[in-house]
Amino acid sequence: MGEKQRGGRSVVFHRPPVITGHACVAGKKEGEGPLRDTFDRINEDSYWGEKTWEKAESAMVKDALHLAMDKAGVRPEAVSCVVAGDLLNQCIGSTFGVREMAIPFFGVYGACSTICESLLVASMILDGGFADCVAAATSSHFCSAERQFRYPLEYGGQRTPTAQWTVTAAGALVLSAQGTGPRITAATFGRICDLGIKDANNMGAAMAPAAYDTLTAHLRDLGKTPDDYDLIVTGDLGYVGSQILLELFARDGVDLSSRHRDCGLLMFDRARQDVHAGASGCGCAASVLCGHLLRGMAAGRWRRILLAATGALLSTTSTQQGQSIPGICYAVAIDSGRDGEV
Amino acid sequence: MGEKQRGGRSVVFHRPPVITGHACVAGKKEGEGPLRDTFDRINEDSYWGEKTWEKAESAMVKDALHLAMDKAGVRPEAVSCVVAGDLLNQCIGSTFGVREMAIPFFGVYGACSTICESLLVASMILDGGFADCVAAATSSHFCSAERQFRYPLEYGGQRTPTAQWTVTAAGALVLSAQGTGPRITAATFGRICDLGIKDANNMGAAMAPAAYDTLTAHLRDLGKTPDDYDLIVTGDLGYVGSQILLELFARDGVDLSSRHRDCGLLMFDRARQDVHAGASGCGCAASVLCGHLLRGMAAGRWRRILLAATGALLSTTSTQQGQSIPGICYAVAIDSGRDGEV
Repeated sequence: MGEKQRGGRSVVFHRPPVITGHACVAGKKEGEGPLRDTFDRINEDSYWGEKTWEKAESAMVKDALHLAMDKAGVRPEAVSCVVAGDLLNQCIGSTFGVREMAIPFFGVYGACSTICESLLVASMILDGGFADCVAAATSSHFCSAERQFRYPLEYGGQRTPTAQWTVTAAGALVLSAQGTGPRITAATFGRICDLGIKDANNMGAAMAPAAYDTLTAHLRDLGKTPDDYDLIVTGDLGYVGSQILLELFARDGVDLSSRHRDCGLLMFDRARQDVHAGASGCGCAASVLCGHLLRGMAAGRWRRILLAATGALLSTTSTQQGQSIPGICYAVAIDSGRDGEV
Repeated sequence: MGEKQRGGRSVVFHRPPVITGHACVAGKKEGEGPLRDTFDRINEDSYWGEKTWEKAESAMVKDALHLAMDKAGVRPEAVSCVVAGDLLNQCIGSTFGVREMAIPFFGVYGACSTICESLLVASMILDGGFADCVAAATSSHFCSAERQFRYPLEYGGQRTPTAQWTVTAAGALVLSAQGTGPRITAATFGRICDLGIKDANNMGAAMAPAAYDTLTAHLRDLGKTPDDYDLIVTGDLGYVGSQILLELFARDGVDLSSRHRDCGLLMFDRARQDVHAGASGCGCAASVLCGHLLRGMAAGRWRRILLAATGALLSTTSTQQGQSIPGICYAVAIDSGRDGEV
């Protein structure tokens, strides 16, 4: 067994990667929500100054990465590679976002779990000794996602109560082998869970079993209990998926409710912002992490957070062909390195 | 600088991952080409026994992975993770291919460079001590790619002379921390190169600068010359891209022609098989590696091979929006561990 492997699916880092910089940018609707004060930049223009929404998404990735590098005090030349991906076909949000940076690039695809997948890969590259400084980033855009996955926006398609609202946001982090800041101490690999959900408007239900699978593996592999974390944050199960996750844990006699939060429920005010079951999209967990969570850790609100980002690995083609929705979830444990007040 | 990092973009493995199993499966046209005897399985049914071409592609991924695991003598439970991706939107070839295996999964997207991207990530996971056994896989299917990227097959669209033919094939490898077999000794990260080519029917030209960029970085970082390798294999530049690559090296006074091969030119007999500029697709470099190249190494034909798979990171949306084509190339050095006869 690999020296850093614990049980089948979890790894511990011998030299925990340090988050030396992080940033998030968001759109107008996100900027009107409860997390408005945690974004580094809010742009009311859904085109972000570009001519198309896809180009806007790439511009957001670029902005988030540059902000994170600025905060980390590193120039692009000092970054060994960027690990990034997004929801757009062939991941063009990321590729066109980093195109002009001349930084080596690893494209990943984990749907809305991408921020944790990219952090996990980036952390292994760093702790494995292959680099000193690695960036991770991801994005989503309501308008580019709607027209790719659902309907042209002009059509005004009706949304079902279980549907989630794709967040317009991008998040980026710089991880370094040295420096000060919160550290990524351990992580758990995701595996595909598919219990047969076929409703592409109920992705929370499709992803909840993957979240349960990865969280239980994490706790088991590392010999931990939920109490070892101040927060266990999923993203993005939304209301429906979160209820299912809590029920699955309750069957094991575990009450996760006091420590559990979900990025899909943190992003918007459901009573006021008409987002049905909550938020989703690669940019949701990424921007909640790079804003709300890491700012809260810096302020001493939480010391140990387990972020378990979930993804629904469907495509319009797989749905049209009657396939169910495979879910996946990667978990990343972050320690602020300072005493929390919780 | 990371202890295994050499220069900016290349890494050397302290405990070189061993390729303990490899397999490739291919379609009818590929099975009529010069590499026909190197495939583990040829299926004349373009549906691979499934109802759609996308499901066929997933079945090919599954078959290639199971064959590779069988050859490596490992059960799926012993594989710590699969690193895989493909050309289909949201990488459904890979995700639905591994869905039932219950193996942890990292989805990657590098277009036709995916086999080298996945081998590089898999090698870092292994050499970093995070696992003992990791699989890498990728696939492409002419029919699923044509209708996603170009036209419905029934339309009978005319192909331009610079166009390449997407290969129907899948390749999979099992890498282990221990065991016998060829070893991955070093690798070079890819970065995006975009010189402004906008013709989606001339991807060889779009990718050639990335191949040149990565190959020169590899040789420079590791202090090597082309003579240090018995073969330098790109994939898939095709005829047009290969000519450009040789010209770029010739400008530096380096004659690469005697050692250079291209997977896109090895796959088909261009004189007989009407594929215009050659072959392409994630499955091309993957199946040439898992068949022709690794079999040739086992037979003592070559000892040291540098495989530099290239990808064109475009989408139909980026092309429709007037964007040029970003290219990328990852290089992986493989040593047979035995004297070659070259």
